Amino acid sequence: MFKEPIIVIHGGAGNIPDNRDQPKFDGMLTAIRKAHSVYTDTLSIIDTCQAAVESMEDNEAFNAGRGSVLNLKGEIEMEALIMEGKNMNAGSVTGVRNIAHPIALARKVMDNTPHVFLMGQSANEFATKMKFETVSDDYLMTDAAKIALENFLKMGGSPVTTEIGHGGVGTVGAIGMNVDGHMISCTSTGGITGKMAGRVGDTPVPGAGGYCDNAVGTVSTTGHGDSIMRYCLAQRIMTNLEQGVEPNLAVQNECEKLSTRIGGSAGAIAISKEGTIGIGFSSEKMAWAYLEKGMIHYGIKKGQHFTIGL
Amino acid sequence: MFKEPIIVIHGGAGNIPDNRDQPKFDGMLTAIRKAHSVYTDTLSIIDTCQAAVESMEDNEAFNAGRGSVLNLKGEIEMEALIMEGKNMNAGSVTGVRNIAHPIALARKVMDNTPHVFLMGQSANEFATKMKFETVSDDYLMTDAAKIALENFLKMGGSPVTTEIGHGGVGTVGAIGMNVDGHMISCTSTGGITGKMAGRVGDTPVPGAGGYCDNAVGTVSTTGHGDSIMRYCLAQRIMTNLEQGVEPNLAVQNECEKLSTRIGGSAGAIAISKEGTIGIGFSSEKMAWAYLEKGMIHYGIKKGQHFTIGL
Repeated sequence: MFKEPIIVIHGGAGNIPDNRDQPKFDGMLTAIRKAHSVYTDTLSIIDTCQAAVESMEDNEAFNAGRGSVLNLKGEIEMEALIMEGKNMNAGSVTGVRNIAHPIALARKVMDNTPHVFLMGQSANEFATKMKFETVSDDYLMTDAAKIALENFLKMGGSPVTTEIGHGGVGTVGAIGMNVDGHMISCTSTGGITGKMAGRVGDTPVPGAGGYCDNAVGTVSTTGHGDSIMRYCLAQRIMTNLEQGVEPNLAVQNECEKLSTRIGGSAGAIAISKEGTIGIGFSSEKMAWAYLEKGMIHYGIKKGQHFTIGL
Repeated sequence: MFKEPIIVIHGGAGNIPDNRDQPKFDGMLTAIRKAHSVYTDTLSIIDTCQAAVESMEDNEAFNAGRGSVLNLKGEIEMEALIMEGKNMNAGSVTGVRNIAHPIALARKVMDNTPHVFLMGQSANEFATKMKFETVSDDYLMTDAAKIALENFLKMGGSPVTTEIGHGGVGTVGAIGMNVDGHMISCTSTGGITGKMAGRVGDTPVPGAGGYCDNAVGTVSTTGHGDSIMRYCLAQRIMTNLEQGVEPNLAVQNECEKLSTRIGGSAGAIAISKEGTIGIGFSSEKMAWAYLEKGMIHYGIKKGQHFTIGL
């Protein structure tokens, strides 16, 4: 039994332009406050983490839901993963279009299908069956996302060298643990500017974009998705936690190892089963925030650590 | 430097009816012989493993390529993953239709895109661009696959309880190491009878359906895909190999832990960087074969071990 629930979120890793810091801070504070209010109302850690991600999916300061980046065809194809630690259940989607909350659809896959992972048009058909409202491309597609694709194409268009932070946006994630030690991992993204249509990134993949096991901990990752998937970043962080490595060290070491072995950069947040928080990144920046004893802690640059009341 | 290359293949795990044993043996012997001839001609371990998988994709004794099982809509949606250990490059596809060799398309994703993983119609569009020939549904769809779906629907249609072996077919995989210690992992599947359209299984997911790292080893898995993905089976076997666990034990232990923690059953093949082979399964059966000193070793039931000349 823990004294209070733990909620940690991130708002993307990469070379984020400085003028995007404040919108990300504002968005993360809103998400943490929303999460806190949902926890107070429901005591459900899964509803809490989902609400934090939905809040960031609604906010164009992040690359998820509204504000998602565009693929090479100028389309938005979104991905999300939810995983719960009690039974290691998971639900995820990739290549979904015209819905506001991919994380909510991932949860429906987990709760209402015999499967883990649905893709593309079939995932959208499932959303219709689950009575999800359709939102227009105009709602999801921001000017920043359009400009990012234009810049990407002007620069020659290689999504290998252009990190996910391009355009100043980023994947979002929320992890949490309730007072009984039950844990959740949620992650949602629009992927990477200029990706090929149909590209699946790390986010919807258990073991890459996130992982959760009450016997070990919970993780959500962000950064260059193709590299994260090849490295199995979330699962490697879990292995560290299982071996008793301190969460901050586990996260930082594995992000740096990814950069050394694979190239690309990444960030991650984690909570160990002992309730210790880990935050780390090999990218220039990662937007992060957590709630502790009624205070919100947050930052984006290396070594930065602000606090503010709920 | 090793004296000879190592080639290990599997032809699926599950509750395989006894009358499917011989067709699987025949198909695996053909695949090993094909692989050996490609290695002799090219000395390329990636071409060798790919050729072994393509041989099984051509053979309706296996659930991959021709002989793939049908989804709930009566369609074939195939998946494949290729990974190489030198640089941990990977390529994979899911939801592809009307091509003979999904493993060849996964390789094109690895070699000719900045990404790891393409899905659905976009993966098929990429196949067209790469000049893949289209094959008809009639070519891919066997009577056995149609009967399996009919039986599945008669039985009430839950892909949770119906293992991938249903209908007597199975995922295929080939792993190999050349004399320099360079390793490859290839896996290909039609998924699971009666799966929802758009369901992504474990096969195309690095860390689930396969993994490869010259510093550690190479793995290919088979079994109940939704469970394998939740457990990150391939990555967990890799962690065992990294810790020096004997490959047979690593594979067997992790398949059994998957069954205990998640439910479902699975099998896997592995090669450690020392060149030791691991074969194990928590399912009733798994079809496996390997080549050693000019002899082919193979089996499908627990404890079974046949040998035959090349």
